[in-house]
Amino acid sequence: MDRAADYQPLLKTLDQKDCEEECVKRSSSRSSSRFHTLLALLAGVLLYPTIGLLLRPIHGPTNLLHAKDPSLAVSQCESTDLLPIQAPRKNVWKNLSVKEATEIRAWLWSPERDLNLTKSALAVDSDNYIYLIEAFVPPKAATLAYLNGSSYAPDKYAHAIINHGSSERIVDYLIGPLPLSAQTQITPLTSIYHEPVIPYNAHGFGPNSTTMGNLIASTFAPLSDLTMDLFGGVAKGLANDTLIGAGTAPLSYDGSWRRMWVGLKLNVPGHYLFPVDMYTYYEMSGTDSSKWHVIKMVYNSQVFNSTHEFREAWESGTLKRSKTPLLNDTSGWATRTRMNRGGNRDLDDRAGPRSVSFDGLRFRVDREEQYITWMGFSFYLGFERDMGLNLWDINFKGERIIYEISPQEAMAQYSGTDPHQATTVFLDRAFGMGDSVKELMVGYDCPVEAVYLPASIHTASGSTTRVNAICIFEKDSTKPLSRHTGWLKDEMGAIKGYELTVRSVSTVGNYDYIFDYTFQLDGTIEIRVSASGYLQGGVWDETQRPYGHQLRDTTMGSLHDHVINYKVDFDIAGTKNSLIAAMLEIEEVEQPWADEDWGKTFKQQKVVRRQIASENESKLEYPRNMEGMYVITNEEEQNTWGNSRGYAIHPGASNIHLTNLDCKRTQDNVNWAKHHLSLVVWLNLGTHHIPRAEDSPQTLTNVATSSVLLTPYNFHDYDVAMDVMNAVLLNAPRPGEKWQVDENNVKQTYCAPRKLPDFTYTGLLSFQEDGSPASATDIVEQRKLAESWHGLHAEI
Amino acid sequence: MDRAADYQPLLKTLDQKDCEEECVKRSSSRSSSRFHTLLALLAGVLLYPTIGLLLRPIHGPTNLLHAKDPSLAVSQCESTDLLPIQAPRKNVWKNLSVKEATEIRAWLWSPERDLNLTKSALAVDSDNYIYLIEAFVPPKAATLAYLNGSSYAPDKYAHAIINHGSSERIVDYLIGPLPLSAQTQITPLTSIYHEPVIPYNAHGFGPNSTTMGNLIASTFAPLSDLTMDLFGGVAKGLANDTLIGAGTAPLSYDGSWRRMWVGLKLNVPGHYLFPVDMYTYYEMSGTDSSKWHVIKMVYNSQVFNSTHEFREAWESGTLKRSKTPLLNDTSGWATRTRMNRGGNRDLDDRAGPRSVSFDGLRFRVDREEQYITWMGFSFYLGFERDMGLNLWDINFKGERIIYEISPQEAMAQYSGTDPHQATTVFLDRAFGMGDSVKELMVGYDCPVEAVYLPASIHTASGSTTRVNAICIFEKDSTKPLSRHTGWLKDEMGAIKGYELTVRSVSTVGNYDYIFDYTFQLDGTIEIRVSASGYLQGGVWDETQRPYGHQLRDTTMGSLHDHVINYKVDFDIAGTKNSLIAAMLEIEEVEQPWADEDWGKTFKQQKVVRRQIASENESKLEYPRNMEGMYVITNEEEQNTWGNSRGYAIHPGASNIHLTNLDCKRTQDNVNWAKHHLSLVVWLNLGTHHIPRAEDSPQTLTNVATSSVLLTPYNFHDYDVAMDVMNAVLLNAPRPGEKWQVDENNVKQTYCAPRKLPDFTYTGLLSFQEDGSPASATDIVEQRKLAESWHGLHAEI
Repeated sequence: MDRAADYQPLLKTLDQKDCEEECVKRSSSRSSSRFHTLLALLAGVLLYPTIGLLLRPIHGPTNLLHAKDPSLAVSQCESTDLLPIQAPRKNVWKNLSVKEATEIRAWLWSPERDLNLTKSALAVDSDNYIYLIEAFVPPKAATLAYLNGSSYAPDKYAHAIINHGSSERIVDYLIGPLPLSAQTQITPLTSIYHEPVIPYNAHGFGPNSTTMGNLIASTFAPLSDLTMDLFGGVAKGLANDTLIGAGTAPLSYDGSWRRMWVGLKLNVPGHYLFPVDMYTYYEMSGTDSSKWHVIKMVYNSQVFNSTHEFREAWESGTLKRSKTPLLNDTSGWATRTRMNRGGNRDLDDRAGPRSVSFDGLRFRVDREEQYITWMGFSFYLGFERDMGLNLWDINFKGERIIYEISPQEAMAQYSGTDPHQATTVFLDRAFGMGDSVKELMVGYDCPVEAVYLPASIHTASGSTTRVNAICIFEKDSTKPLSRHTGWLKDEMGAIKGYELTVRSVSTVGNYDYIFDYTFQLDGTIEIRVSASGYLQGGVWDETQRPYGHQLRDTTMGSLHDHVINYKVDFDIAGTKNSLIAAMLEIEEVEQPWADEDWGKTFKQQKVVRRQIASENESKLEYPRNMEGMYVITNEEEQNTWGNSRGYAIHPGASNIHLTNLDCKRTQDNVNWAKHHLSLVVWLNLGTHHIPRAEDSPQTLTNVATSSVLLTPYNFHDYDVAMDVMNAVLLNAPRPGEKWQVDENNVKQTYCAPRKLPDFTYTGLLSFQEDGSPASATDIVEQRKLAESWHGLHAEI
Repeated sequence: MDRAADYQPLLKTLDQKDCEEECVKRSSSRSSSRFHTLLALLAGVLLYPTIGLLLRPIHGPTNLLHAKDPSLAVSQCESTDLLPIQAPRKNVWKNLSVKEATEIRAWLWSPERDLNLTKSALAVDSDNYIYLIEAFVPPKAATLAYLNGSSYAPDKYAHAIINHGSSERIVDYLIGPLPLSAQTQITPLTSIYHEPVIPYNAHGFGPNSTTMGNLIASTFAPLSDLTMDLFGGVAKGLANDTLIGAGTAPLSYDGSWRRMWVGLKLNVPGHYLFPVDMYTYYEMSGTDSSKWHVIKMVYNSQVFNSTHEFREAWESGTLKRSKTPLLNDTSGWATRTRMNRGGNRDLDDRAGPRSVSFDGLRFRVDREEQYITWMGFSFYLGFERDMGLNLWDINFKGERIIYEISPQEAMAQYSGTDPHQATTVFLDRAFGMGDSVKELMVGYDCPVEAVYLPASIHTASGSTTRVNAICIFEKDSTKPLSRHTGWLKDEMGAIKGYELTVRSVSTVGNYDYIFDYTFQLDGTIEIRVSASGYLQGGVWDETQRPYGHQLRDTTMGSLHDHVINYKVDFDIAGTKNSLIAAMLEIEEVEQPWADEDWGKTFKQQKVVRRQIASENESKLEYPRNMEGMYVITNEEEQNTWGNSRGYAIHPGASNIHLTNLDCKRTQDNVNWAKHHLSLVVWLNLGTHHIPRAEDSPQTLTNVATSSVLLTPYNFHDYDVAMDVMNAVLLNAPRPGEKWQVDENNVKQTYCAPRKLPDFTYTGLLSFQEDGSPASATDIVEQRKLAESWHGLHAEI
């Protein structure tokens, strides 16, 4: 390669001058006669057969084609390898490495800490064990000082959650400073949370809580004859069980107890869409699972206070049998198998268009520091177990505009006539949106030429690393960012609408959330979340009609709200930022020039600006008919025209808040979801999802999507995207002359992109608590880890 | 080329087997050792220098590189020419050809018609002349019969508008059947319009209404000393005039008179942003321009009833001079010249990523019939002078879903303290959104590989053809349409999110409207309009603060509403379609299984469905917080699961209606804009635009955009996109095994795309009324045609 590299400048010069411009034409009939002559002289007459023979094994036979018709000469694209960059500052937000987490575990286990810890791999609920270790987000003030030039980075700390099963408490700890030394201390971390003590029953289940599976087995193994009769399946706690459970959430609203409705469903592919009409309510408070028990059972709207009552009704024949037929559809409709009734679509056997950076990638990544730059933007990535990817210190053209964008919570609240749908309010932070980040399918989840980054988390299951957890890619939006057709000098032209997207996908049991952060050339940032994957299906009967639609023989899609909350901490020209409501109002005005023709007074709209003064006042709705907007400004900093510099929050698709504002099930836990946005800014994205047949087998991301634009609003003096070189400027000619075209010397390149690897998928890299690689988990374990309590297997 | 074609299969086989799979690796260090050995033996030791020398002129020097590293062998992509298709039926909606229109003109001019017509090129307002000729849209019933198999196409008619200046009437005519024959008749066309007689004053101005320019000249030439003093410019009616006029609209609300406010502005590039503080109100009723006159003039909020009064105030020194300074900024800030203060952006000298169909285009176009097919969709294009592009007979997977999508009107209503902004309500249909369709900038307005179609219209200016008026392209949305990570058999995979877009751009004076129709694999269609181009700038002073923002020394961007109305005529499983409102409501329910833990009763949301019964009831708003949706259904046709087949109207970005509901200026003319949608369905897109500094020099399409999705809603039994081949199905392996990957044998191709032509621009092909090519118009005429009354030049 060294030798080739030496040739590079020469090759490029010759190539451009002699070939690209002259001989590579769209119409192959227009070839350079000079080349044809040369070809005939040198190759065709004298040496062609020899060269052809020699070349075949070297170049592959396509060169024969070129030798015959030099107009088809092609070249391989120059390297499109990612260009390096060194982050100006260390990434103080990046998560701990596997090595760091392993060392902290060992430090916590050490007898000197006196925590009496059991290794998480072996611990049961009544043990003390490490639930989570991750990097602690450093304080903003110290971090800003560091970013702004101080040579002192903020001290590094870890955040650990320890499950004190022995005393039924969950405690957050701060561990640091790091790296571990004699100065490192562990202290309870209470100041950043609302409640100093977290009740044990506010906690879900540990990784070894087989007790949920035990409960299901103890309930339904003795009822196998009933379940076989009523549902055609059993949940005995065996590997070939044909029924599994699905739990609801939350299990408590204040942590004084923990109780869960468990529905049953067929253990088949797409089981989320195969619920059966059987719901059991369990008492599961405390760590002593011997005290856990069935509170009630519901079948076909009949309530039983014990398995005994249920069996008695069945045996005595007083049980009113469900009109819902047995599920016996084995057609695979709930899978992703191709369903091409009616044949293939015309030309679908061809690969569709693909975005290629023929000139090489135009963004840079410091992989070590997870720092990215593109077209004037720069930012750092962070990653956490609870909510996954977040972004820090977003700069545009040399100014910090946003300190932090981080998702905070994702809820899904359902409706229905059955206990399962009616009581479900998932708060996915608890399940771990970061823990649920899955390997991206290269070329499907993101373009094949995207740059992929790994992400690691450290939980009670050990440490895990997803390769290809985050992708970064540039694309052409295929719409000019700005354009005009005009006739005076320099009025006419267009800027291409390039965008850079950073994406990760969390599959939390049934649903897949695609998290996108997209940067645009004018300084705009889009936050978008899209959903796919399986609905939480309900059992269809006529009473369910107000709550969704039937989508198979016995299955319905149930009405639900998704609300995803984001923290967006703007730093507009510094940290002194205000929230301005600029609302449209209709006024009636009189003007000296107004006349009888149109009326002496007339109505028109105006903007009424108001600063949102207090936190209390800041629970905000987008106005009716979008008549107004919210702007984050720095009231002490104006642009040249005297307007406060700012960024506007510009709603995109489906900017909703929660419908149900008064629900004991969520008590005060989802107040953040009850408005469109509030102050720093928290904003909500989401969808009201009334499922339809087309949500089967899996929900579609084109409709199930929600977005918001953060866009410069008098932040600059003009549109700074006017500095972009990938643009055209046109000037109208005099008759008979050609249009004057200025493309800033940016040339499209026509070359063959390098072949990228065929599709492969790695899955999860797991590490034990001591940092050693874990043996590959089998499919059963992978499924259990991933489906959480969406797929509860009976266990003996 | 024949010889090369013969080699193709062999080459491909060898290529794939020997090279692509084995030696072309992402990492160039991993090359085939077998090839390296051969290279060393044949080329490196013995023949390499000779081959290098001989190859240089034949292949271009890049082959040296390949000779050294055979892993870089490349091939030219096979032809990506558009594949043909023949439309199953003639396009009964396509506009008349230049030849047809020319023949109709001659037929109308004929003395037998007794219309006493003057050729439009020569006509003044008081003459009778042809204002418009275009294809008449055939009746739906007859057209449906034809589309559904009848061998009789509906008779073809033309629609003509004749300006009867001699009797001060405007009359619409129907001319047919066509082609012209003894049977062809001309009859007044009144039945489809609200008013049988269109008053002359409801009409704007003819193409030769130089009288507007005359009026400005007669007003301001004698005031040159004033305008020079007050604004540093003159409007004398000379070629080098430094001031031009800009008219408002409408000029009447009921056609009983015609009066216009004209503002003045500097005649410089981006003149829309250089208004000066001078407004004149003109009486312009009737065809006798000798009676037209100044009603009043406004300068610095002072009203004068004549030019004489104005001059008197100036000469006597009683004129209060404007605090607005003279415009003297010649920095070119209102042009599209690059403004790269702070230097270039990193890597912006590289061309950005480009979408390429390496396997060839996957859509087909019948250019003659303007018929398009893509992935199960098929439809016809129509084109008209008033609103431009429209779509007809949209089928998806063998069923008609929509009969017609056509924009109906586009309005822009402004606010401000000055007469120009306060009185402007543009209704762009009158200006001609089709007439204003501009040639697309290839590679900027649409991808370079898009297919481009021409469009013609026939007006009083003759016939004009825009080459590249419409583009069609497929792109990868870069987001999977659906995806899931799962562990049971066939649960896991993704479908690529391909889309087909049909686009045209109308530049109506200052603003550029980008009209997009985007088709998606599940049957969803997105309608989107985006805006760019120049604001209608206002003169900044402090009184204007409630109406926008200052964006230069003397210029402001003025608050305005854009509302664009579309007709969407669904045919869901036939023509008997209903509109269903499915609204979310909160209910309090009691269930037998509900318990004290969470409350015996609880609140949840439900869907309340209601059929919108009458036209009167059908002025509809999207609900607060988007709590509900509208669905077009066929109540007589259910899918397999018993739900009425339908399409939902799913709001996208900025779904707004007009803010100002009570304005005499628009009287009953914009009632369509006062709701989000009404029945057939009319729906509105638009933006409330509070301009900011970043709207200068030109507005940005990422924020100034509005969209709606029309999406299958129980139309199918499941998501039919599950038949797509550009998809991956994954199955989890047992430990130690590889993931099972099924990509339906669709392979990515790595080849060099053909070089497409360098950027060129044609402009307008014009034809005289007799069909002969018009001489190329010069820049002054082009500007006049395009800017309409946004750029009124004083004319003597």
